[in-house]
Amino acid sequence: MHLSVQTLFLAASATRVLASCAHGTFLQPRAEEGGEVKVGTFGYIGTIGPLNWAALETANMVCATGTRQSPIDMAGNVFTLLQPADVQLTVNDMPDGAEFENLGTTVEVITQGGSLAVAGKQFELQQFHFHLPSEHLDNGTSQAMEMHMVFQSATQEIAVVGVYIGIADGAAAAAAKRSTRIDRRQSVSTAPTTLLETIFSVVDQIAVPGTKVKTPPLVMSEVVDLVKAQPFQIYSGSLTTPPCSEGVSWHVSTAKLGVSPASFVKVRDVIGFNSRFPQNTPGQPNILMISALGSAAAAVAVAAAPVIAPPA
Amino acid sequence: MHLSVQTLFLAASATRVLASCAHGTFLQPRAEEGGEVKVGTFGYIGTIGPLNWAALETANMVCATGTRQSPIDMAGNVFTLLQPADVQLTVNDMPDGAEFENLGTTVEVITQGGSLAVAGKQFELQQFHFHLPSEHLDNGTSQAMEMHMVFQSATQEIAVVGVYIGIADGAAAAAAKRSTRIDRRQSVSTAPTTLLETIFSVVDQIAVPGTKVKTPPLVMSEVVDLVKAQPFQIYSGSLTTPPCSEGVSWHVSTAKLGVSPASFVKVRDVIGFNSRFPQNTPGQPNILMISALGSAAAAVAVAAAPVIAPPA
Repeated sequence: MHLSVQTLFLAASATRVLASCAHGTFLQPRAEEGGEVKVGTFGYIGTIGPLNWAALETANMVCATGTRQSPIDMAGNVFTLLQPADVQLTVNDMPDGAEFENLGTTVEVITQGGSLAVAGKQFELQQFHFHLPSEHLDNGTSQAMEMHMVFQSATQEIAVVGVYIGIADGAAAAAAKRSTRIDRRQSVSTAPTTLLETIFSVVDQIAVPGTKVKTPPLVMSEVVDLVKAQPFQIYSGSLTTPPCSEGVSWHVSTAKLGVSPASFVKVRDVIGFNSRFPQNTPGQPNILMISALGSAAAAVAVAAAPVIAPPA
Repeated sequence: MHLSVQTLFLAASATRVLASCAHGTFLQPRAEEGGEVKVGTFGYIGTIGPLNWAALETANMVCATGTRQSPIDMAGNVFTLLQPADVQLTVNDMPDGAEFENLGTTVEVITQGGSLAVAGKQFELQQFHFHLPSEHLDNGTSQAMEMHMVFQSATQEIAVVGVYIGIADGAAAAAAKRSTRIDRRQSVSTAPTTLLETIFSVVDQIAVPGTKVKTPPLVMSEVVDLVKAQPFQIYSGSLTTPPCSEGVSWHVSTAKLGVSPASFVKVRDVIGFNSRFPQNTPGQPNILMISALGSAAAAVAVAAAPVIAPPA
């Protein structure tokens, strides 16, 4: 029976094409170039939301049972700090622009090459997409957004680089625009990141799920240089979307990007809300299992209660 | 047994003093004036988080079983629109400042009088506090923050006025500061609200849960005039914190307040994250009950799976 469940899991994963964090990986292959944008069947609210993902597909079982699920609160005791020298990160520029898709569950940029080399493993960049508000908590603190750069190895392992995005100050933005020399280190959390401003400048053109647009030319070095200059908080977690597969190598950057208030409103009005609730500490029981026990006990108490009190 | 559970529920509610949305109401009376700030025992992450509130206290059972729980997605079909003329809202200014407390689960301003009169009922203002990111979703869209003004009637009914807070643009903020004549309607979502800037100017002084500070003088008319000039989206829901009591009259404002990026960072660094996940559509089964069934099925499948496959 163990084998059957496993087989079912793999079969279901391999045959479905769903829009999610795994989009563009072996778990959820993309449509061919020029093909239609596939829209996700899961969501973030109600019965298709993260509390019920396991019930949507047999393949999603681990969403409710896995003990190393993401996102988590990046508190001091759950991650290892990886120094910049131990990571090689490259992302190709996209001088002709990139395909930018609305998958219903996120907005995603299809990349044109890039790699992550860490601990002797090599991963190839597939895409990056956005969550709003942030999925990981930065030591208990919600961030405005989070960017996920999704990599896959030749052996189909998945690594994700997560980068928090804060709201840039309009005044700082104006100053940065006027200045020809930008001190990047100082502007990390206060000035808008040009890459994000460029991408989000066309996000209103993909307001409808299933649509796509070509971005203006994208220069990736600004973000890559920022991210690879700072340590990463690493841990072994999962996809934050169905099928919630585990064994994902998370690299949460300690560098932060910025988005201008105007661009934030634009992308927020398209994304809406796509943040999975914080999962339990890695290695602890899935919080949905704990919740189910507590809820079941409550349900039994309610069900057992007669409407009319028995005679004393 | 029905009566015993009810009695237990009421007894537990009446005898405990917890920091929450119900703080300052009959459910969770405040300490006397000048008393210590009581810090909440629930939280937003892991086993003390919203997926497990029902298991923390018998009194919290309805968090997992209630069918009219808050917050919800304020989509078109779940609320009634209440016109401004049908609501009387007043909030007293606080010329000597107000007590501003860190309850661990939120930061809260203790008010000094105010009332809400609606549908022939009269409610008295107890306090207002903040959630980050927003708890309600504005037609599927997450907002940066949400302010909850909590009112209680003489018969101990609770009404809450919820107001979304967006990130104000720094440029707009600077312009508003320079201008002596502010067009309130235009500035709703782009300029910072003076009341919020004033309150949050001292939020870093209550970074530690259990501490309090006196705010500068608070003029309430700016916010009250804005809010009472726009329709409310009303529905019958619950407290968004334990004990999740239902029968709460929600009035979600269609006016929005603004917070400057700098003040947002200040208050975010104190609050961290205190947003309960979106609940099911009012009248539908509690999403934790639905989740428990799905999770239980998944758990059974995992538990039933032998490690070694049986011979064919």
